[in-house]
Amino acid sequence: MDDTTKIDKFTAINELARRRGFFWNSYEIYGGAGGFVAYGPLGTRLKQNIENKLRDIFVKQVGILEMESPIITPGKVFEASGHVTNFKEPMVECVKCNKRFRADHLLEEYAKISSVDAEKMSLDEIQQALEKHGIKCPDCQGDFNPPQQFLTMFITTIGPYSGATGYGRPEAAQGIFVEFNRLYAMAREKLPFGVIQIGHALRNEISPRQGLIRLREFTICDLEFFFDPEEPCCRLLKEVENEILPILLCESRLKCCEDTLNITVREALDRKIVKSEWQAFFMAMAKKLLVEIGVPPEKQRFIEKLTWEKAHYSSQSFDQEVLLDRHGWTEVSGHAYRTDYDLGSHMKASGADMRVFKEYAKPVETEQLAVKPVMAKLGPVFKKEAGKVGELLAKADPQVVKAAFEKDGFYMADTYKVLPEHVDISSQKTVERGKRFIPHVVEPSFGSDRLFYVALEYAYGVKDDRVVMSFPRSIAPTQIGVYPLMNKDGLEEKALELQKVLTQEGFTVELDETGSIGRRYARADEAGIPLGITIDYDTLSEGTVTIRDRDSWQQVRSQIKNLPELLHKYFQRKINFENLGSLVES
Amino acid sequence: MDDTTKIDKFTAINELARRRGFFWNSYEIYGGAGGFVAYGPLGTRLKQNIENKLRDIFVKQVGILEMESPIITPGKVFEASGHVTNFKEPMVECVKCNKRFRADHLLEEYAKISSVDAEKMSLDEIQQALEKHGIKCPDCQGDFNPPQQFLTMFITTIGPYSGATGYGRPEAAQGIFVEFNRLYAMAREKLPFGVIQIGHALRNEISPRQGLIRLREFTICDLEFFFDPEEPCCRLLKEVENEILPILLCESRLKCCEDTLNITVREALDRKIVKSEWQAFFMAMAKKLLVEIGVPPEKQRFIEKLTWEKAHYSSQSFDQEVLLDRHGWTEVSGHAYRTDYDLGSHMKASGADMRVFKEYAKPVETEQLAVKPVMAKLGPVFKKEAGKVGELLAKADPQVVKAAFEKDGFYMADTYKVLPEHVDISSQKTVERGKRFIPHVVEPSFGSDRLFYVALEYAYGVKDDRVVMSFPRSIAPTQIGVYPLMNKDGLEEKALELQKVLTQEGFTVELDETGSIGRRYARADEAGIPLGITIDYDTLSEGTVTIRDRDSWQQVRSQIKNLPELLHKYFQRKINFENLGSLVES
Repeated sequence: MDDTTKIDKFTAINELARRRGFFWNSYEIYGGAGGFVAYGPLGTRLKQNIENKLRDIFVKQVGILEMESPIITPGKVFEASGHVTNFKEPMVECVKCNKRFRADHLLEEYAKISSVDAEKMSLDEIQQALEKHGIKCPDCQGDFNPPQQFLTMFITTIGPYSGATGYGRPEAAQGIFVEFNRLYAMAREKLPFGVIQIGHALRNEISPRQGLIRLREFTICDLEFFFDPEEPCCRLLKEVENEILPILLCESRLKCCEDTLNITVREALDRKIVKSEWQAFFMAMAKKLLVEIGVPPEKQRFIEKLTWEKAHYSSQSFDQEVLLDRHGWTEVSGHAYRTDYDLGSHMKASGADMRVFKEYAKPVETEQLAVKPVMAKLGPVFKKEAGKVGELLAKADPQVVKAAFEKDGFYMADTYKVLPEHVDISSQKTVERGKRFIPHVVEPSFGSDRLFYVALEYAYGVKDDRVVMSFPRSIAPTQIGVYPLMNKDGLEEKALELQKVLTQEGFTVELDETGSIGRRYARADEAGIPLGITIDYDTLSEGTVTIRDRDSWQQVRSQIKNLPELLHKYFQRKINFENLGSLVES
Repeated sequence: MDDTTKIDKFTAINELARRRGFFWNSYEIYGGAGGFVAYGPLGTRLKQNIENKLRDIFVKQVGILEMESPIITPGKVFEASGHVTNFKEPMVECVKCNKRFRADHLLEEYAKISSVDAEKMSLDEIQQALEKHGIKCPDCQGDFNPPQQFLTMFITTIGPYSGATGYGRPEAAQGIFVEFNRLYAMAREKLPFGVIQIGHALRNEISPRQGLIRLREFTICDLEFFFDPEEPCCRLLKEVENEILPILLCESRLKCCEDTLNITVREALDRKIVKSEWQAFFMAMAKKLLVEIGVPPEKQRFIEKLTWEKAHYSSQSFDQEVLLDRHGWTEVSGHAYRTDYDLGSHMKASGADMRVFKEYAKPVETEQLAVKPVMAKLGPVFKKEAGKVGELLAKADPQVVKAAFEKDGFYMADTYKVLPEHVDISSQKTVERGKRFIPHVVEPSFGSDRLFYVALEYAYGVKDDRVVMSFPRSIAPTQIGVYPLMNKDGLEEKALELQKVLTQEGFTVELDETGSIGRRYARADEAGIPLGITIDYDTLSEGTVTIRDRDSWQQVRSQIKNLPELLHKYFQRKINFENLGSLVES
């Protein structure tokens, strides 16, 4: 790989992506629509492979449950969750050309105010800053109307009645929270358990930009992990406790210091830098995921979110960031400790009981006092006020009444002096088998499209002036290329046969028979196909093929009959390229 | 299976689905929202397995390209496609309670007008029929306002400007059509080729009903296959030509006759019952798909759509139907010959050239005449009219001018008499290497949620009063259950170890250690787990396990070390249950 070649990777990748069909901007024939992309055949497979890697790590290995719920959501859900109130961005409109802009982005671009600072400004402060820095409409130099908050959810109407507001979900998390009771039943009513949802989400950005980085429609992977805050231990912590988490703390960020603290998961917990064991566990898993899609640990970090940066539901948040060529440090996942905020909000708004029952190790016996007015005694003393006194006594705290009798010999119910003989104080024993509580939640949330872009950027390399997309073999959109040396003498049929066999074995195989072998290799490198198998005349006479490695361009010679087994082992990472056959000297 | 047990499968399945987490109505805690469902862990896996079966058949075996595009779509796209004009349903509103109903459904329910007849009625005819049959509001007996057309797309606004109308896509097909030029490039500019998209789609139904059968948000699998209408042969036809297609023809349907014609694909084409070879091919593949998810051929049919039933873009359409317990014959896929309608519409609306270039076998040479006025000659004759005469001649058909000279010796340009000497007639040879044309499209389109429901209903059976979900092994949401006989003496650890090994081998494995073995088997049968592996004391001493078959309840004894290989073969359908070990006599 030639490190001296200075190209803007973002531009190079977007060009390659359009040409080879990884992705491109949607609706180009209609002039495009900002914030929407289409994934072509190579991109769709790469994206699916990345999403399946998430499933592999979280669903298969950790045992998280997967669910699927709708994108269109009744208004009540996002009213309860706080999104209708909070999911807004400041917007200004030009008085002259009526163009609208995201106000905080203008301040970042034209007043060099950091995003950290811009995000915490009120509308008034934004207006003052715009005026102070003399920021005008970038398009026509017009003045701006006062900034206003713009709700960045897509709004629609469900069914034929105008009142039934619906929103396009900006996160998949609420689809999990509102179904908590059923999901808890599926987890056999045991904490802790987690639920993941991978699906499209919508955010009606004011001015989307940066290709795949800020989209209006994207794929989100929200994992909600429910646990008992009184039993916060993570049973899987041992597996990750020595992993290093590179963390940029709030205190450093406030000092504009970019030095990360490199500490183990164990240390981060001991020093209370990360509050929840499960959150630390998922951060370590997120780091592992990024390594598996091609991002080395030193290009990753976690930044602690400042108070005003955190979502409205979050108690402690970290963003996982990856260093990108043009965009610098860029968020790829968020790790929020959502506490019982969401379940509590839905419980309150819907009236449904979303608490779980926790049995005590042994039942707790409690004694409760009860004060009962004796009307036959109250009547003669208080006459027509007796009823009122009775009511006051019924509402009184029995402990307070009893204490007053003991201390003073009477109890003042409002202005009425009550004597011990006026009431019956009895004691009731109750046995509590357990209690009900709302589980706490930690949430790792990944943006599939960003992971996809990151995978492209970290796979991108140039060798001998040719682009080589060095995807890790487990996410490569095409696993194997099959190339007949010539389209005659039965080589083509042999290639077709091999393609069929390997496809039946479950591999993703592409047969390419057009152009010189060199051109086919170049095309394959650009598509990131790890292995290329060439069918030549020796294949017919001796049953051997050449296998070529995408990254080293080395070749080995191997028996065609051994291919299925060898290739399975190779893609399961049990063997490496050198083990696929005997090296061909070039 | 006990066929005498008369239960309504729809009710039984919905109850089971809710309880075991296949699916349920979304947003129950907020009183529900019609037409939206949530899939639980078992359902999500079953649905994914069905969608992956589609990928397996169409993407892996047939070589169809897969793509992914957004759900939110700019208004222009659905204006051009005809949806804004046509994607409507007749609706009536009660004058008293303001409740709204789908008018054709009212006529079907209360006037016993067939859906075939109701669908072709105009708004006036609907009103007359409602009045004639005295149909009132089913809720309050009020009268109806005149029927109106209701657009059944979800409407929203894209970005911060009120003018930018967007729709939730009611089909994934348009996402393919608008990106045709790029997709064609990815197919290396060769016809025929196909593109499939599997993703959420939205239809704002007036009154959704029937659980999974009519949803407002659902998963659609649209496959658009592009071909040259002058070369309509299907290269894969041989593979399916002897498959039987059970077809209910238009002529039978009009006679209310339900007899299907059972003919081979070859015959259907020869007798021009199906117009396009590719369409017939996809119908045969659709039949195969349904067999693979558990629907026997005799429970399937294709009905030819009547003129007024067809979508606005379709030249010939068939619906694939499956016989369901409560709903009768129910559509699971549509097969439309969309011709060049969609690409032509987008080409016209967007101005983008969506034609493909077709090279002639050999270039066609054509000779073209050109008439050029000789102004030096026209001037003296026509004086100040000369310019006008020149213009007329430039616009004239050279063939007509030449013929007039040959026949009459002059040519009348309007009222001006032009002589041969006034013009130069020359002949130009042009060589045409090929021509441009709009490809034709056949579309198979599947509803993933309906396939899912159909799979549930055909898997459903009752044995000894217990529900057994006999999913075909290739789509079972959980493949293997692992059960330690006791939770002591190391049996639990052994089970955990086996679960880990099998998970790493790629199987979907559930470990169940709660309750008696009998109860665990019953739970597994209900979840449709094909194989159950029990770890007992012999496992520790002899390394053997018991494997139980979900459907026959038979058991075999097998070496634990052979399991991965045996199970791979079993799930690849290379061996059957009997081959997994030696039968245990019960």
